[in-house]
Amino acid sequence: MNKYFAQLLPYLERNQAYQTALALLSWDTETLAPVAASEYTAKSVGVLSEEAYHILVCEEVEDLLKKLSSPKELESLSVSEQAIVRLLQKTYHKLSCIPAKEYREFSELCATAQTVYCRAKQNSKFEDYADTLEKLIEYTKRFAAYRAKKGESVYNLLLDEYEEGFTTEVLDSFFEKLRTALVPLIKKVVAKNDAIDKSYNSGDFPADIQSGFCRFLSGYLGFDFNRGVIAESEHPFTTSLHNHDVRITNHFYEDNLESALFSAIHETGHALYEMGVDDALTGTPAGSAMSMGMHESQSRFYENMIGRSRDFWTPLFPKLKETYPDELSSVSLDDFIAGINKAEPGLIRIEADELTYPLHILIRYELEKEIFSGECKVSELPKRWNEKYNDYLGVTPENDAEGILQDIHWAGASFGYFPSYAIGSAIAAQLYAYMAQQIPLADYLREGNLVPIREFLRDHIHKYGAVYPTNELLKKVTGEEFNPDYYIRYLTDKYTTLYHL
Amino acid sequence: MNKYFAQLLPYLERNQAYQTALALLSWDTETLAPVAASEYTAKSVGVLSEEAYHILVCEEVEDLLKKLSSPKELESLSVSEQAIVRLLQKTYHKLSCIPAKEYREFSELCATAQTVYCRAKQNSKFEDYADTLEKLIEYTKRFAAYRAKKGESVYNLLLDEYEEGFTTEVLDSFFEKLRTALVPLIKKVVAKNDAIDKSYNSGDFPADIQSGFCRFLSGYLGFDFNRGVIAESEHPFTTSLHNHDVRITNHFYEDNLESALFSAIHETGHALYEMGVDDALTGTPAGSAMSMGMHESQSRFYENMIGRSRDFWTPLFPKLKETYPDELSSVSLDDFIAGINKAEPGLIRIEADELTYPLHILIRYELEKEIFSGECKVSELPKRWNEKYNDYLGVTPENDAEGILQDIHWAGASFGYFPSYAIGSAIAAQLYAYMAQQIPLADYLREGNLVPIREFLRDHIHKYGAVYPTNELLKKVTGEEFNPDYYIRYLTDKYTTLYHL
Repeated sequence: MNKYFAQLLPYLERNQAYQTALALLSWDTETLAPVAASEYTAKSVGVLSEEAYHILVCEEVEDLLKKLSSPKELESLSVSEQAIVRLLQKTYHKLSCIPAKEYREFSELCATAQTVYCRAKQNSKFEDYADTLEKLIEYTKRFAAYRAKKGESVYNLLLDEYEEGFTTEVLDSFFEKLRTALVPLIKKVVAKNDAIDKSYNSGDFPADIQSGFCRFLSGYLGFDFNRGVIAESEHPFTTSLHNHDVRITNHFYEDNLESALFSAIHETGHALYEMGVDDALTGTPAGSAMSMGMHESQSRFYENMIGRSRDFWTPLFPKLKETYPDELSSVSLDDFIAGINKAEPGLIRIEADELTYPLHILIRYELEKEIFSGECKVSELPKRWNEKYNDYLGVTPENDAEGILQDIHWAGASFGYFPSYAIGSAIAAQLYAYMAQQIPLADYLREGNLVPIREFLRDHIHKYGAVYPTNELLKKVTGEEFNPDYYIRYLTDKYTTLYHL
Repeated sequence: MNKYFAQLLPYLERNQAYQTALALLSWDTETLAPVAASEYTAKSVGVLSEEAYHILVCEEVEDLLKKLSSPKELESLSVSEQAIVRLLQKTYHKLSCIPAKEYREFSELCATAQTVYCRAKQNSKFEDYADTLEKLIEYTKRFAAYRAKKGESVYNLLLDEYEEGFTTEVLDSFFEKLRTALVPLIKKVVAKNDAIDKSYNSGDFPADIQSGFCRFLSGYLGFDFNRGVIAESEHPFTTSLHNHDVRITNHFYEDNLESALFSAIHETGHALYEMGVDDALTGTPAGSAMSMGMHESQSRFYENMIGRSRDFWTPLFPKLKETYPDELSSVSLDDFIAGINKAEPGLIRIEADELTYPLHILIRYELEKEIFSGECKVSELPKRWNEKYNDYLGVTPENDAEGILQDIHWAGASFGYFPSYAIGSAIAAQLYAYMAQQIPLADYLREGNLVPIREFLRDHIHKYGAVYPTNELLKKVTGEEFNPDYYIRYLTDKYTTLYHL
């Protein structure tokens, strides 16, 4: 092993201990911690974040990174090691621009903001959260300004953190394609929506029964219970302490069958990615999924391409009917497949169907651009939000909770994150088209054999963690870089068939 | 505020962040974490322990502590501040004798040892755990030797960590008193044991029903759900991240009613102590219970003096019968009170009744003395354990799981901890005798009004955290230092009456 690279390892190991603790504190806050703990937890998060900062931002690491960036040293590194150095350089650059004290204050603010946001959402009062959001935006702008090159836009820098290379130029064109194709398609679909009856979905589904079935589903897809746990939280999410401790949550609505069902499949898709990362990368900057877009491609692939297909439910639907014999007695597999794919413009992103979903993302993307260009003030956000929902989806929120306050992302200063949901859906369609040529996907699904599908994804994507940038990995796997045409074709074909358009 | 004391505070705040994270990692491992995570968690625990070590063991803290120990500076501190300095000095002295690297290795070993122990217990094979235990004993001996004054015994140093001033000299005399009084009493009780029928206890008690009732019980006693959570684990325990985040666990056996019921009361007693500490002490070395003995005095007070009394169950028993209508239909309150107080020599400490319990502790105390005097080798422990159980309680374990492997304490290197269980029971009896003179305890219990009892304990004990050493606090509250006679009298009176001796 390169001697400088070897000298880096103890820093990575120390940093990993902090990241594990911070991830656990965050998970615990979302799933279990008592409410009165939050301000104390925020302080601990502030302290530990600052300490972790000092482990990476120090002369020794700077010196080692400098040495390792010479062509001679780089050449002696393996592909994984090169990626680790590259990713660490990126983190180093980002952190070292920020004064340690500010970084701690910001980390503490983010931890506090979650609680402020949740309370505001409960009371459906955006005003109670506006000041906090304002501060989060200010910090985000300031931190981005610290590292921006001349003329570089703040929002492009933010986007780059979630998906390298996907600037507003790329995304504008991507979303324009989506808008052009989907808006007329949605209109046609809505006109014929009475044809699909999904009243079966609003029955009586006890939480513990749902929980049991969802647990079974996760295992069916390949979730490894030795390396992961499942809990409950307000919104479903996935977190990874490292590839041997991957955690997903769900939320059960007793009057809604689908919500938890597809959350379970979605989060399991995320979890399989993290669980599948090669052990040689554990605890390094390459030890987790490449990007939020790639991450989302895996969850969407399982949720939509697999989880909403007839083939997938062919062996499973009898078991679902057995689980809810009264509620589903008169529902056929065809009814169910039509129901879980029915498209209806709505207010809530996480409850949106596959077809209208990208428009929810488009709205957030446009708003984020307006926030960071200064075009829209924080106080105007609820109004702008509602206007856009009316324009794109023809629906108008009645209050902040079902409007601007529905997503927690901004409360964690995750600005620039939303577009990766749409990028992920598009990558999922691209991978699906490729995979269907390579393996007998439909046969496996009908046989109830999910192993070869997970193994295909592990071998081609999961095991590499963050070693390859998204476009490089896509090219390596499918022979082609990011191409949204697959996604548009997939949605068009699927909905044309489903609605007999 | 004294300027040197003020300069200490940032170190305390940083240290608190680490202690919070370490407590959470440990809680998570016991309650939720996937099995494959354990070796990675152990590494994180090792790193974070070493970092926390460096925060306290540094020139700045040493210098501040030195300055603060001069009579002039000490005088300018409040009682709480003096206690914080005294407790920090003790920790500083203990840690600074140990090389940082060894401290990290030891912390990592402790985290790993839990898993090794649990696996060995599952397979009931002491051999699989013997090497780890040997290492834990070696480290403990070595660390104690680092700070031992000439002629000071290792075991006395260990005892001092859990209960200051309770040396083997004090404990030998305490346990001798107990042995002399209890062994003949137990004999008389056992001879008349057929008189009490507690067959009602081995019915069919679904875990979720038990869980609901236990949750109600905790709230009834005063558990504050805004500052605490309840979860499940293999063995019930309490942990405190700080006084706004106190956590207890329980374990439900579906064929045993009492086990979880009294665990809930016991752990709630611990939790009330931690929740009751004054906010001015949060995050300082005085921000938690004084000692393990004082801690146990609160859990035992609630479990035994309160929780096994007729007055306590008078308003509650009807609710318990409603909860299990079939199982308890023919059980009267008198039957139940006799049953929950029935004394029977058994193998398992945590299932022991109030009367035989101290003998379980005596056995562990004697074994620990033998381990640290070198009289008993690790390999001989299972044999010695079984001999002592036969001698003192007339029962013999059939395997390691119900013998030497039943307790997790040694796997956490908590040598010297066990005696505090007996000390705690004795303190509980002493406090009970005093409290019964001060407030109408029995009336409150019969009225189902637990608030004044919790408030009494908060005002006299809980709020002080670790400000006063045990004997000083006892004298302050009851006018008398530790006096085991109350305990012996309490047990003698109670069992003489119960068994009509």
